[in-house]
Amino acid sequence: MLGLSRPTLRSDLALLVMLGLIDAKPKVGYTPGSAMSPGLHASRKLLNTKVKEVQALPVIVKENASVGDAVVSLFMENVGSLIVVDDQGCLSGIISRKDLLKFTFGNTNAATMPVSMVMTREPNVIHVSPDESVVDAAKKMINHQVDSLPVVVPSKLEQTGGIPRWDVVGRITKTIMTKILLDMAVGH
Amino acid sequence: MLGLSRPTLRSDLALLVMLGLIDAKPKVGYTPGSAMSPGLHASRKLLNTKVKEVQALPVIVKENASVGDAVVSLFMENVGSLIVVDDQGCLSGIISRKDLLKFTFGNTNAATMPVSMVMTREPNVIHVSPDESVVDAAKKMINHQVDSLPVVVPSKLEQTGGIPRWDVVGRITKTIMTKILLDMAVGH
Repeated sequence: MLGLSRPTLRSDLALLVMLGLIDAKPKVGYTPGSAMSPGLHASRKLLNTKVKEVQALPVIVKENASVGDAVVSLFMENVGSLIVVDDQGCLSGIISRKDLLKFTFGNTNAATMPVSMVMTREPNVIHVSPDESVVDAAKKMINHQVDSLPVVVPSKLEQTGGIPRWDVVGRITKTIMTKILLDMAVGH
Repeated sequence: MLGLSRPTLRSDLALLVMLGLIDAKPKVGYTPGSAMSPGLHASRKLLNTKVKEVQALPVIVKENASVGDAVVSLFMENVGSLIVVDDQGCLSGIISRKDLLKFTFGNTNAATMPVSMVMTREPNVIHVSPDESVVDAAKKMINHQVDSLPVVVPSKLEQTGGIPRWDVVGRITKTIMTKILLDMAVGH
């Protein structure tokens, strides 16, 4: 249905591991009397938090799904963008509410077109690896003015035309960044 | 043009004052040897940062503007939502990319309808005051699942039917929250 290969929900579980601020680990990195500023501590904590610790499950659509299917998926899953994959499940593109609004507005035939006509296509998709820090992810979102990034790992499948192929393992968003910020404030 | 009463850009200047992390003030709140945890410091810093220190200028549309005008404004200003005001400039509603996509998709007459038909209307708009902390703003965005909030102050105009009226003075978004997070990491 809808070309969705893996219907997923926003991962509230991710909140539980966010930043390690709410887990049971003792805060071994800090000793009162250290000459480090508190800002430096917060900075280190953020730099040490990896994308894979806070990512949500990806919401995926196949590239031959229709724009109509994509709009329905976007609303059903309540996400700002969908990750598009090819027949072999590798990252093919990304399609956002903004892309869909621009394409469908006043275009009566839009619903039946394939998402591949509208999406931002690889290798132009901005993505992040699970082992990068949340700070790198935030930087990419701000610099490239996007609201979310697919989290990817290199695919074992053969490259086509020298372009690397990626398996999609997660999704990171400005909503997650906002939750991290909230967590830093109320987690103590 | 376009029913925009005040075309504005995302305030990059806001970055300069974000959290006070990059200003010239000495960090008087912290002395090495203090028993406070660094997390508590980061938490206090966030709790002490007010919305007015980081807000962007509001992007506004009048309630008699058309849905077509709103879509154009959204793309011209490159924002996720528009704040709708009444004839007297008071907050009337808010309209997002999501609202517009839902309303315009497959609706050939959508462009000529007034935005007041599509917007979330007062008193159902989630808003924040300039003196609330960024943490309160983050909390509201997460709890109510919205990507931005109008920043408002009570209007001096008479109430209608006992409902308070608000003047719009700013806009705060998950993008700003992401910039704050980034700033906390790289500002030191």
